[in-house]
Amino acid sequence: MAKKEIILTGDRPTGPLHLGHYVGSLKNRVQLQDEHQQYVMLADLQAMTDNVDNPQKVRENLLEVAYDYLSVGIDPRKTTIFVQSQIPQIAELAILYLNLVTVNRLKRTPTVKTEIDQKGYGENLTAGFLMYPVHQAADITIVKATLVPVGDDQLPMIEQTNEIVRRFNFLYKTDVLQEAKAVVSKVSRLPGIDGKAKMGKSLGNAIFLSDNADVVAQKVMSMYTDPDHIRVEDPCKIEGNTVFTYLDAFDPDTQTVADLKAQYQRGGLGDVKVKRRLIEVLNAVMEPIRERRKEVASNPAAVMKILQEGSEVTREVAQQTMKEVMQALQLNYFEK
Amino acid sequence: MAKKEIILTGDRPTGPLHLGHYVGSLKNRVQLQDEHQQYVMLADLQAMTDNVDNPQKVRENLLEVAYDYLSVGIDPRKTTIFVQSQIPQIAELAILYLNLVTVNRLKRTPTVKTEIDQKGYGENLTAGFLMYPVHQAADITIVKATLVPVGDDQLPMIEQTNEIVRRFNFLYKTDVLQEAKAVVSKVSRLPGIDGKAKMGKSLGNAIFLSDNADVVAQKVMSMYTDPDHIRVEDPCKIEGNTVFTYLDAFDPDTQTVADLKAQYQRGGLGDVKVKRRLIEVLNAVMEPIRERRKEVASNPAAVMKILQEGSEVTREVAQQTMKEVMQALQLNYFEK
Repeated sequence: MAKKEIILTGDRPTGPLHLGHYVGSLKNRVQLQDEHQQYVMLADLQAMTDNVDNPQKVRENLLEVAYDYLSVGIDPRKTTIFVQSQIPQIAELAILYLNLVTVNRLKRTPTVKTEIDQKGYGENLTAGFLMYPVHQAADITIVKATLVPVGDDQLPMIEQTNEIVRRFNFLYKTDVLQEAKAVVSKVSRLPGIDGKAKMGKSLGNAIFLSDNADVVAQKVMSMYTDPDHIRVEDPCKIEGNTVFTYLDAFDPDTQTVADLKAQYQRGGLGDVKVKRRLIEVLNAVMEPIRERRKEVASNPAAVMKILQEGSEVTREVAQQTMKEVMQALQLNYFEK
Repeated sequence: MAKKEIILTGDRPTGPLHLGHYVGSLKNRVQLQDEHQQYVMLADLQAMTDNVDNPQKVRENLLEVAYDYLSVGIDPRKTTIFVQSQIPQIAELAILYLNLVTVNRLKRTPTVKTEIDQKGYGENLTAGFLMYPVHQAADITIVKATLVPVGDDQLPMIEQTNEIVRRFNFLYKTDVLQEAKAVVSKVSRLPGIDGKAKMGKSLGNAIFLSDNADVVAQKVMSMYTDPDHIRVEDPCKIEGNTVFTYLDAFDPDTQTVADLKAQYQRGGLGDVKVKRRLIEVLNAVMEPIRERRKEVASNPAAVMKILQEGSEVTREVAQQTMKEVMQALQLNYFEK
């Protein structure tokens, strides 16, 4: 079967992946890999942009994230998993792209702007951080991706990429580079167990794919529900109630969830009971993942081999793209 | 004989080289190549930073500059001449360095600041232009250069390079990278034929190494001297008199030059007579260069082969440096 689209997606290897990743992207990747040619990138160089003093962290998490990928069913026979730093052509292309983007345009990129504010870089804003949208444009275009699954906050990055693509193709009268379509995940973002909008490794509110059953139970039991729910018989709110948000995301039995919601809103359904159901539901999803993870993690050398082979495959594709780029730029001096 | 230092130097291939280059750097390179391991880089990617819409210009001048190198006596058996864009490891290293430098630091780099003002970039300042000191740091360190001949306006670039080197070596507890010493050319800068401080390709005031004898005669005859020199018998000024500056730079017979100066200052020596001497002196220097240029330019394929072989040699050195850099960063995942 001919693959329809070329997809690029990936993660920064700065910590193990969690249920937010599972719902927001991993599940999707497992579905996409049958019909499309999918590249999943371990973005170790991007991780370095704010872990410059801690490469060890990036190094260690590379394998963790790879275990997560394989555990959820990303299949290296269908999906090419590669490591960003192992593709020198991405750096070459990024350097060329830097000439096509103004500093002011980069500073106005919404995602960058937000992160600059959030992380309080101020005077300490590094060149690497400011230019990471350009690096991302190189990631996407080096494999000629046509489809990039993103969160809605990432849309401006794809727009930046396509601006570069159009400018390059126009300036050098070529169609070497491909514009990419962003596909925004339809699943609304999974909140953290504390009810905060975003589940995050660094926020301490995540359930990791690698958490064992006990840890999951403990985390669910501590979940944010309705703070006004004092007595079991009180009528309670569903809105912003994390436990129900999770049931909506993971419980296949939507009728039962609807019934539970009705009962909860009327009063007479205790948090503990709903949480127990969520624990069961989550473990039903996570148990097969855990099983596979155990198997996968028992052989790190085999996993490294998968990453190495995926990187080799990607490097060949990247070489071809760079060859065409250098031709368009007339920098192919020594080509026969 | 063991080579003492590793030298990196080079030019942007945006036009043929002129007598200013000869006096300021080329002559020096011919001397240095015997005692030191010298790399001369054709900085085509740096040339692209402000010729993004004209890669053809860069492409065409690559060979012109290479002809100039070989004509003045840079010997490919002693000096490694290479093309920047053919060394992907420079881009890889530059991308890593971007994390070690703040945007504000780059904006404060004096050379960059001056050029931003001069070229009136304003809102249109590209990321590529802002970041070229980082790219230069990668050029220098990828071959582990210990000595970089520069004009005094380039000193801040070497300081920037060494800042990166120190930060890298400190952060990653390594001594992989070498600090470089700047060697400022002792020869004062050759003025343009219009008397302006700097001879420049784009200023229209240059005598090119590839100019033939007629063109040189014509250019010398139009040279700026003492604007108050109306009659031959008038006493005249030597200071700021371009013809005498050139005689100082090129005439080996310093006694005769001293006599001419004295006569000129007393009065009774016409400009034309001094200019005729300069024409002779310049042609004595330039004729052997022209001869070699004719020979060299008759075989472009052989010159391209020299650049290709030099690039291959440099790539091997660069690969070794990157291997050590990736080890220091612990990004050498697949190394046996």
